[in-house]
Amino acid sequence: MDTSSPASPARRDVLRGAALGTTALAATAAGAAGTPDTAALRAAVKADHDVNIKRLQDWIALPTIAAEGRNIDQGVAHMTQLARDAGFQTVETIKPAKGIPAVFATMDNGAKKTLGLYFMYDVKQFDPAEWSSPPLEGRIVDRAGMGKVLIGRGATNQKGPESMMLAALHAFKKTGRKPPVNLVLIAEGEEEIGSPNFAEIVRTPKVLAALKKCSGVIIPFPSQAPGNGNVSVNLGAKGVIELELVASGEKWGRGPAKDLHSSNKAIVDSPAWHLVEALATLVTPDGNTPAIDGWFEHVLPLTPREKALIADSAAKRDQAREMAQMGVKKFVGDMTWQETLERLAAMPTINIEGLVAGYTGPGGKTVLPARAVAKIDMRLVPAQTKDDCVAKLKAHLAKRGFGDIEVNVSGGYDPTQTDENSALIKAELATCARAGIQTTVYPRLAGSWPGYVFTSAPVSQPAGQFGFGHGSGAHAPDEYLLIESSNPKVLGYDDAVMGYVDFLHQIAATG
Amino acid sequence: MDTSSPASPARRDVLRGAALGTTALAATAAGAAGTPDTAALRAAVKADHDVNIKRLQDWIALPTIAAEGRNIDQGVAHMTQLARDAGFQTVETIKPAKGIPAVFATMDNGAKKTLGLYFMYDVKQFDPAEWSSPPLEGRIVDRAGMGKVLIGRGATNQKGPESMMLAALHAFKKTGRKPPVNLVLIAEGEEEIGSPNFAEIVRTPKVLAALKKCSGVIIPFPSQAPGNGNVSVNLGAKGVIELELVASGEKWGRGPAKDLHSSNKAIVDSPAWHLVEALATLVTPDGNTPAIDGWFEHVLPLTPREKALIADSAAKRDQAREMAQMGVKKFVGDMTWQETLERLAAMPTINIEGLVAGYTGPGGKTVLPARAVAKIDMRLVPAQTKDDCVAKLKAHLAKRGFGDIEVNVSGGYDPTQTDENSALIKAELATCARAGIQTTVYPRLAGSWPGYVFTSAPVSQPAGQFGFGHGSGAHAPDEYLLIESSNPKVLGYDDAVMGYVDFLHQIAATG
Repeated sequence: MDTSSPASPARRDVLRGAALGTTALAATAAGAAGTPDTAALRAAVKADHDVNIKRLQDWIALPTIAAEGRNIDQGVAHMTQLARDAGFQTVETIKPAKGIPAVFATMDNGAKKTLGLYFMYDVKQFDPAEWSSPPLEGRIVDRAGMGKVLIGRGATNQKGPESMMLAALHAFKKTGRKPPVNLVLIAEGEEEIGSPNFAEIVRTPKVLAALKKCSGVIIPFPSQAPGNGNVSVNLGAKGVIELELVASGEKWGRGPAKDLHSSNKAIVDSPAWHLVEALATLVTPDGNTPAIDGWFEHVLPLTPREKALIADSAAKRDQAREMAQMGVKKFVGDMTWQETLERLAAMPTINIEGLVAGYTGPGGKTVLPARAVAKIDMRLVPAQTKDDCVAKLKAHLAKRGFGDIEVNVSGGYDPTQTDENSALIKAELATCARAGIQTTVYPRLAGSWPGYVFTSAPVSQPAGQFGFGHGSGAHAPDEYLLIESSNPKVLGYDDAVMGYVDFLHQIAATG
Repeated sequence: MDTSSPASPARRDVLRGAALGTTALAATAAGAAGTPDTAALRAAVKADHDVNIKRLQDWIALPTIAAEGRNIDQGVAHMTQLARDAGFQTVETIKPAKGIPAVFATMDNGAKKTLGLYFMYDVKQFDPAEWSSPPLEGRIVDRAGMGKVLIGRGATNQKGPESMMLAALHAFKKTGRKPPVNLVLIAEGEEEIGSPNFAEIVRTPKVLAALKKCSGVIIPFPSQAPGNGNVSVNLGAKGVIELELVASGEKWGRGPAKDLHSSNKAIVDSPAWHLVEALATLVTPDGNTPAIDGWFEHVLPLTPREKALIADSAAKRDQAREMAQMGVKKFVGDMTWQETLERLAAMPTINIEGLVAGYTGPGGKTVLPARAVAKIDMRLVPAQTKDDCVAKLKAHLAKRGFGDIEVNVSGGYDPTQTDENSALIKAELATCARAGIQTTVYPRLAGSWPGYVFTSAPVSQPAGQFGFGHGSGAHAPDEYLLIESSNPKVLGYDDAVMGYVDFLHQIAATG
């Protein structure tokens, strides 16, 4: 850990303590277990580079999109084959009562410890017109200041890093050795619609029994920052709710049943205006802070330890670079970097992801729309829960005369949080330390993944995201994964694969 | 005029005066001129019924849509041929500096009086998936309680009634006689985008000179109500402004330059929320009344005469039937029918015709959109003007911190108003009286047409909409025109054509 942080002396003492702890851990882990004979594994990874990239490209070429019902059966079959090929001995399909099947696989390596792997085999929708290379091609292109990157839907979210973990398993297989831990894989196909059936899938008795034996669960994640290669170890992630707010003349009992000529606005109520007025009550006038009645009732403030962790992050993360990468000139409220990162971790959000009403084509069309829709996502922080927040939203709308507006929840789940002192987090930090990669520990990812299914009862395991390398553009055009790095601080594909090899050994050795 | 109106005695006196005036006028007009030898003309219209309907269907099959740049040259050529075929002696194209050409045609019949005809040869966009029969086919289908209707884009707005006027001219031609008035036709192709170049077209010296000779200008309009066959003679029409409000990270200097992962909402401003907050300031909380600073500064209240006219309309128009036809259960504010019709005439409107931001497809997509658009139309009443209203909107937004939101005006024009005592309106009322059709005089249409180009300087002519028959569904799916009427109070196609024959004679005789 970097002790050249420009934090205040008092804060430095706190961080130094944390840093020393990590360093000591890393040394212990390396001393106790290390990664035996990595040379052969590394040679295997290098030799199979093209095979591994081809495996990722083939997967990207088959986008499973739950929202569109696209490539469901094919996605399950492909994920099943990927698991078999990587050496999983049992691979089966778990079908929820409704929704899309998951793939459940186990690999018994006769080890003492077992690691859970969470994969998602689905991806977000995409519009090829917005991409600089075809989103299903996985083309490898030069990117200035980075090296070679692979562009494709799923490159970073999440097929890319998942393919790295599979590549690590292939390296064990090719060199004729067993991974140092047993593995349990659960791969869902509905992550991008808010994992509506994942809790049910995980509570399937055989899946639950397998997960209960784990030392923790990770989702592969290329977590290095592009400039300094810093890895942010997230101790949790925000929860999420995705929903549509639908205002319609039909449900309202006012406004038109079908689109009318807009001259009638003089005498006919407008569902579109009704929706706009309802939306405006959900957030503060600057659009930045939830204003739903009681929204902060269960929101926990940051602890002093969490603030100290964020201070360390603020010192190590490159604000200017991150802003440039995001395409953002100012953060909300023109706050300091520390305040911004505190807000990123601690603030629940209400975001408009889409608006659709009336005529949406080129030019205008003078209609009074019968229906208006806002697509909303909300991010939740501990100790908010999805169910309580949905209830609060509905009560808030009803109280203000918007009870007719439909709240159609399509998915979502609670926040997830894992103890900084768990074996899983220790193994993550140790792996970084052995690789000489600077880490920051961040209270929680501002994004979401359904880790709560693992961290809450009945599984009750530590869970986190982990991995080296770099990728970006999740949900956006030109999503990419770094393949060959021109920056020695950021690992390319093969080195990131080796990171997973080392991580499996750390899991075997830690705790 | 129906003097069985349940209006109060005092009001009845007012209306009776108007009614008597109209009746006297009608008798005079009929006595002085009438329509000589209508039998031959009527026989010609009847004999050519299929030809006239085919002419309309062929026109509908060629949709000119300015917003999409669709069938511009073909639309001009078709309109040119329609004018030539109907007997116009000079037909030429008038090209504005920017935009789509108009067709200017004259027919010198050696008459004392000249009537101006305003045609639009363009139509609104349409989505065939929403129609019960193909929108370009002009299929004739049975409609319960009405008779046979022709379904197609432009059936009522405006090719259908324009084709009736052309059919009337063909009847004169076929029977070897000249229409009793000279005609000046100006047909534009940009009405549906707000006639952005029509003032320039009309001020072309030769067009202006021709129009200055007219006794007034009409746009053909099938103005009979479906139940009682009542004709509402509109003394004017609201003005309109069509515009897009565009919020973007780029212009704002806050928010993302391109769509971001929505987890960044915690720290990045949202153009979509910015737009929602701005929109909410434009109207009262019920979405029904403009709240832009100074919006009512130039709005003229209804005069006592206008209120009396509306009272007559309220008595004669069938509220329940109109609501059912609109697909509306309640009007704004649960007002009385009289109050509703006053509001329809007198209230300026701000309507959301479309909302587009971020992800608009099925399901959700967790993006923070870089751009959000509201498509807005505003209806203006006397003495509001387009330019003043656009300036007020911009000032209102700027004052509230929304000055970055682009106000992209795509078209529009001022309201139009014509004197109730003008020769044009007198001829309209006389034609109705001769046909035994009940009339109401309504202060102004809640919709818009660019009549202001004629009623304001330098043309300064009376202008109005006129015609018999019935059509509905302008801008909506299944737009239709009544062809064969099963209701004796509402005229079918051929009788409506004869209405124009009679109207031309009334113009010749009136004044």
